[in-house]
Amino acid sequence: MTKGEKTRENIIDASYALFSMKGFKQVTMKDVCEVTGMSRGGLYSHFSGTDQLFEAVLEKITEKSAADFQKEIEKEIPAAKILESALHLMEEEMKHPKDSLSIALYEFVEMTDSDIMEQLNRNAEEKWKKLIRYGIKRGEFREVNVDEIVNVILYSYQGARMWSRIISMKPKTFRSITDHIRKQLTGGER
Amino acid sequence: MTKGEKTRENIIDASYALFSMKGFKQVTMKDVCEVTGMSRGGLYSHFSGTDQLFEAVLEKITEKSAADFQKEIEKEIPAAKILESALHLMEEEMKHPKDSLSIALYEFVEMTDSDIMEQLNRNAEEKWKKLIRYGIKRGEFREVNVDEIVNVILYSYQGARMWSRIISMKPKTFRSITDHIRKQLTGGER
Repeated sequence: MTKGEKTRENIIDASYALFSMKGFKQVTMKDVCEVTGMSRGGLYSHFSGTDQLFEAVLEKITEKSAADFQKEIEKEIPAAKILESALHLMEEEMKHPKDSLSIALYEFVEMTDSDIMEQLNRNAEEKWKKLIRYGIKRGEFREVNVDEIVNVILYSYQGARMWSRIISMKPKTFRSITDHIRKQLTGGER
Repeated sequence: MTKGEKTRENIIDASYALFSMKGFKQVTMKDVCEVTGMSRGGLYSHFSGTDQLFEAVLEKITEKSAADFQKEIEKEIPAAKILESALHLMEEEMKHPKDSLSIALYEFVEMTDSDIMEQLNRNAEEKWKKLIRYGIKRGEFREVNVDEIVNVILYSYQGARMWSRIISMKPKTFRSITDHIRKQLTGGER
């Protein structure tokens, strides 16, 4: 990684923290300068504004998680094992509502014309569909209705993440959602 | 209903429309005066501020929906029939993202100390648990893990409602969620 790339990554990570804490509207380029210790000119040489920054944050999150499934499938790692890591990660994320970008996403979509969310949602769908089809092909997963299960996975996760910012939720609530997904796919308990 | 009660209901309905459109923060008592055609004094004789108004909106929604299940159970209406109406209503609500209070809920909770959301969430849980146990007792529903299914119902619904404000979603997506819930409970297709 070049020094420029490293700086870019640092800016993205610092921005993620700001967006999850404050939403999209209330984050300014000045805030980003402050937390990264960069000059205005330095920051603008990487990003033209908070719109571009937010898109970079979303892309980073998605690339990271999409790449994971694909790589593991290519290595022929058992589907049940890939699923287990994914459910574990989901549970961890649900337990940390403060890291959720939900509010920022809302605000971003209301304020911009970006279609990045459609793209990200399709990526998430495709990623899960691939894993489920792979699991079915290997005889590890039941012959479920793929579209249906993918929707249940994506939206129950999103709903729980959103509500965990509104009310305090117990870990066993998150656990029951991942248990449900596991049972649907493998028929088994954890 | 007395004239005062009727006025109160009108104010609540008008406020619901404002909150779902604009969120919580951006709605003022002046907005409510404008859409209801009331004077400032008239409005304040019913509600002390937008906090109280928002709580009244939430209470109205919840009471209405909780009362429905309870009444039907007392009348010994088949659980599958009660479920069908509830799923139909969920689908209709998911198809109308603009009526969703999600953003307003977020903002309300961030800005106030109200614990009304915890209360409302518990009510929704209790209501569904009652229906599912009733269905199991009548032999209409499968012996599901009640807590798990209730969480899947509540959060997949909330997640889909939230995302339908962020991206455009197809009716078949909502349908697949209600189909999933039906299959879990009755084992059958629509």
